Amino acid sequence: MNTADPTTDYSQGAAFVRGQYLPIGQATLPLTDWGFLRSDATYDVVTAWDGAFFRLDAHLERFAASCARFRLDPGMAMPQVAQVLAECVRRSGLRRAYVEMIVTRGQPPWGSRDPRQAVNQFYAFAVPYVWIANEAQRAQGLHLHVSDVQRIPSASVDARAKNYHWNDLTMGLLGALDAGFDTVVLSDGAGHVVEGPGFNVFCVGADGVIVTPASGVLEGVTRRTVIEMAQALGLPLQQRALPAAELRGAREAFLSSSGGGVLPVTRVDGATIGDGRVGAVTQRLIETYWAWHRDPRYSTPIAY
Amino acid sequence: MNTADPTTDYSQGAAFVRGQYLPIGQATLPLTDWGFLRSDATYDVVTAWDGAFFRLDAHLERFAASCARFRLDPGMAMPQVAQVLAECVRRSGLRRAYVEMIVTRGQPPWGSRDPRQAVNQFYAFAVPYVWIANEAQRAQGLHLHVSDVQRIPSASVDARAKNYHWNDLTMGLLGALDAGFDTVVLSDGAGHVVEGPGFNVFCVGADGVIVTPASGVLEGVTRRTVIEMAQALGLPLQQRALPAAELRGAREAFLSSSGGGVLPVTRVDGATIGDGRVGAVTQRLIETYWAWHRDPRYSTPIAY
Repeated sequence: MNTADPTTDYSQGAAFVRGQYLPIGQATLPLTDWGFLRSDATYDVVTAWDGAFFRLDAHLERFAASCARFRLDPGMAMPQVAQVLAECVRRSGLRRAYVEMIVTRGQPPWGSRDPRQAVNQFYAFAVPYVWIANEAQRAQGLHLHVSDVQRIPSASVDARAKNYHWNDLTMGLLGALDAGFDTVVLSDGAGHVVEGPGFNVFCVGADGVIVTPASGVLEGVTRRTVIEMAQALGLPLQQRALPAAELRGAREAFLSSSGGGVLPVTRVDGATIGDGRVGAVTQRLIETYWAWHRDPRYSTPIAY
Repeated sequence: MNTADPTTDYSQGAAFVRGQYLPIGQATLPLTDWGFLRSDATYDVVTAWDGAFFRLDAHLERFAASCARFRLDPGMAMPQVAQVLAECVRRSGLRRAYVEMIVTRGQPPWGSRDPRQAVNQFYAFAVPYVWIANEAQRAQGLHLHVSDVQRIPSASVDARAKNYHWNDLTMGLLGALDAGFDTVVLSDGAGHVVEGPGFNVFCVGADGVIVTPASGVLEGVTRRTVIEMAQALGLPLQQRALPAAELRGAREAFLSSSGGGVLPVTRVDGATIGDGRVGAVTQRLIETYWAWHRDPRYSTPIAY
């Protein structure tokens, strides 16, 4: 096998498309799939770390719930989804991977506008692990911007079901990057921060209590992991509305994401968080996050 | 040429993909394009009717404005876009076509999360003309449901730039179809109707004044055509907030869409509109809409 041949080279990632495994560069979606033309799709992302999935069950459970909320049928049971994901990782040979599962609406017969007549389509792919913060940002902490762009409210799109409605996040991110920030968190229009592109947000107050927004956010598996780690470590945590002013005045702040776990924030707009260095609670959660990757309760080894 | 060969048969439509013309069934998008994975795209739809584009300039103008709002670059000037669209229609041989132009974000280098580093991609396709109401519905009038689902607000996604953020429309439509309605209009959370899947909404009050929502809606070219027809016909028209109760109590109601022009509504939820038949103002606008298709001011013939 010539690994330089783009039709057989899985080294940049592998995908599962219309029942076939393909190198990621060959993976496509019909232009007419409503998953694209109406962003009528749901998805989930699980990571593989050192050859094992982290919290695979939690991701599959949420994926099934997202499918049900949007009335999308993956066409296979979750154990079979797990097999496809493992095969994508195995073919890529990646030990650390970002693994996405997707269901799209597909397409109803030409002329029909009825989503119920569409045949839903399942896709999956594995690519190299994605970090939402680079090494320097992880060491020094991110510089976060609180955007005036409002996150799409749950009265419009159910935030609990993972979806590709990201224009608000993208426009907020573009504004933040242009102004020299590392990333962005959107607000709810009432002075509270909500979530950013691919992450949930947390802060630690002077009283040592960890706070994260309760509603209007994705129920992130890494967010859930932070909540469970706090419980295991005996750290107080509240899920409630988080005013932007409280975040700016916090002692510590961090993000949670499958794209890097717990990621420190040391500046928010013009404000320095704490003493401007990665906080002690944040550091402890980072260490616990990676330690849990070696815990067999959360780890599903992949057969390469 | 064997026209049954799906690789060369353009009869179901033609697409322009990565610089090449393809039969619509062969047209694809990379799975990893952020146009799909983040619904980071804009588009426009122009129709061809009896061998000519209708209001092509207005659609190209809005497409260019949408691109600018979302910072997406089609990579070609609008006259060249027009040429590609005409070539898609010509290859399909369709005299009546639904013609879509699209720009997607593309994909930044692997690992980058910066939309500014992505190479934007242009796509186009022509397929048979799409009606959002079938023949019986056009004759008898549609039965419309006012959904509790709220249209994504402009504070989150700029409704003036055409986008694929349709989950709210899709979930509202599914609810309406399940309950036996023909289609759906979403609300703004404050008791006003806003827009539906692919159309704007209008009503005519007992005073003869035509009313259509002023904000939080797509600036539809067909909506604009209705406004201009009203002016030309000397019919009074107001753009303002439209309470759902006012729509239900209206003398006439209709939708506007590139997928059929002016489409009568004769029932809204439990209420019969007027005497339950297509109203006189609506009928006059329907006739004018199709008459304008033969007006050289609005018509751009396609060279087949």
